[in-house]
Amino acid sequence: MADSRLTGPVRVVGVGLLGSSVGLGLRARGIDVILADASPTHLGIAVDYGAGRAPAEGDEPQLVVVCVPPDVTADVIAAELEAYPEAIVTDVASVKLRVLDELTARGADVSRYIGSHPLAGRERGGPMSGRADLFAGRPWVVAAHDGISYRRGGVVDDLILDLGATLVEMTPEQHDAAVALISHVPQVVSSLMARRLVDGAPSALNLAGQGVRDVTRVAASDPQLWVQILGANAAPVRDILTAYRDDLDRFIDALGDVDAPGARRRIAEELAGGNSGVGRLPGKHGVDRRFTPVVVMVDDRPGQLAQLFQDVGDIGVNIEDFRMEHSPGAPVGLAELAIVPEAVESLIEELSQRGWRIAG
Amino acid sequence: MADSRLTGPVRVVGVGLLGSSVGLGLRARGIDVILADASPTHLGIAVDYGAGRAPAEGDEPQLVVVCVPPDVTADVIAAELEAYPEAIVTDVASVKLRVLDELTARGADVSRYIGSHPLAGRERGGPMSGRADLFAGRPWVVAAHDGISYRRGGVVDDLILDLGATLVEMTPEQHDAAVALISHVPQVVSSLMARRLVDGAPSALNLAGQGVRDVTRVAASDPQLWVQILGANAAPVRDILTAYRDDLDRFIDALGDVDAPGARRRIAEELAGGNSGVGRLPGKHGVDRRFTPVVVMVDDRPGQLAQLFQDVGDIGVNIEDFRMEHSPGAPVGLAELAIVPEAVESLIEELSQRGWRIAG
Repeated sequence: MADSRLTGPVRVVGVGLLGSSVGLGLRARGIDVILADASPTHLGIAVDYGAGRAPAEGDEPQLVVVCVPPDVTADVIAAELEAYPEAIVTDVASVKLRVLDELTARGADVSRYIGSHPLAGRERGGPMSGRADLFAGRPWVVAAHDGISYRRGGVVDDLILDLGATLVEMTPEQHDAAVALISHVPQVVSSLMARRLVDGAPSALNLAGQGVRDVTRVAASDPQLWVQILGANAAPVRDILTAYRDDLDRFIDALGDVDAPGARRRIAEELAGGNSGVGRLPGKHGVDRRFTPVVVMVDDRPGQLAQLFQDVGDIGVNIEDFRMEHSPGAPVGLAELAIVPEAVESLIEELSQRGWRIAG
Repeated sequence: MADSRLTGPVRVVGVGLLGSSVGLGLRARGIDVILADASPTHLGIAVDYGAGRAPAEGDEPQLVVVCVPPDVTADVIAAELEAYPEAIVTDVASVKLRVLDELTARGADVSRYIGSHPLAGRERGGPMSGRADLFAGRPWVVAAHDGISYRRGGVVDDLILDLGATLVEMTPEQHDAAVALISHVPQVVSSLMARRLVDGAPSALNLAGQGVRDVTRVAASDPQLWVQILGANAAPVRDILTAYRDDLDRFIDALGDVDAPGARRRIAEELAGGNSGVGRLPGKHGVDRRFTPVVVMVDDRPGQLAQLFQDVGDIGVNIEDFRMEHSPGAPVGLAELAIVPEAVESLIEELSQRGWRIAG
């Protein structure tokens, strides 16, 4: 840890989801937060919401956190570096190299700028969507670069730790390649898949199950924001999409004559590669072999899930993850509880004794 | 409804997930179920599991349900049509035209065959994964064709309704085009995305959030099964994948020079097309505007979710959907409840009074 400590004031520029969440989180720790936004209306809402105070004459922020859309991030950082010559400036944009390059090109004092990116978000935006715990437990990348010493940037570390996030150090290049792979390319893949649904017959769409819903969920994201993100990280995204397209071409070729020698093997290899890839994702969600699903049938009415969770709690088993599955019009739903394997047998037995129908 | 009623016996060939579920569901309605499987071990397990009985001399099934892998479905149907000249035969394979064509080509008596396909499944296979309610509320396509009268095929309708599924009539061509769009192409898109993760740096994969997990979830599916499915439905899958590839090519081109005239507009249009497509998916999941999310912070320990659901039940609000979000190592999780918009305000107020921290 650096010897500079975050004492504030911290100036947060842009009070959307991320900015207001930074403000709320720092206010909860008693730090003086100064808010700024191009929209006086948004600024007023964020102040009323408790995310910080309006700027005042003579403010001398120790740290500035720029939380504006990617397209204007470099402009705002440059202005803040000039306006507050003693302050360290960071930003939370989801692309890092482009911002640093723009600042360097215009001769900004990057010895006081260190970019960062919290891997946190939610579907809603605006100051009212902010929450103090948005970053809790989430990775927050600090994009180190040669122009700033680790010691000088220490207040950014403090910011991240104060907000409960997990600090991850990367170069801007490493960061941009990483988010291209785990965020930007999946967004494109999902959007293009969802685009195919536009021409689908309603009778076809009515057959949709959880698979296509999962694949296309992020396709509901805001196109205007994503144009900025993809535009600012075009090269890494393009590289991965090109490799994806090459795989896709091979796949389409193999489907052209599935009885040709090697065609089925090629398809199987591509699919097996997908198995390997998804198996590399860490954490609780996705294909997680640390937990075992137990499926319980529940009636679709108030109190049923409450009773189930009450019973599971009474049995003393922790629910690691939970998913509800039910079809429109069906009188019952299926509650899938993910629990540690050791607890499966006793949980099933005890739930059954309490009258629950275990479906798997 | 046809005047032939399903009274049994029903012979189920293949006792994997689908076959054992058909058996369990029919047994629950008191119908005599005869099980058959190429594996005596599997057959024994399914019988012990209560999905039906072993075959006996002189069995005269009214209906045969073929639940074997796609590659051998036509062979097994042909054999069953010959062995039981009075029986109606159906199957549950996820591709319909290829099976019918193969049967016609070999001169099978398709006047007693009507293909079908339940849109139901789960990640686990084998007889022990079967459950009587697997088909409850799920669509089940009957692929009508010219060779069989609706009246004669009536027992298939009865089968579907007895198992609690929703009957959907389609031609084999309509069915295969529909599942190509809502199941087979999403599988390919997801697998190829997951394949890109194979080369990702561990530090990149550690940044993965819910988006990439959702996009790649189905990539964990069994390659051997999917080679058969995709091979049997190659033409419709190829058509959609080719259109997808054309969109992808345009996308990659636009990323090649995002500052070229029209490039950003093209990217935005592709993404907006994805918005439109995902918005067409019906039902509770995905982008569902009928319900509003309420996010509540919960400690990651036994009893917490129980208490939350208890409280929501006491307040008298029905939880339409539920999602748990938490990061490894984080002491709290975020429980996202989907509820009807009318109930949001009072739920938030009452939960807050009970001490819950509402995060959004």
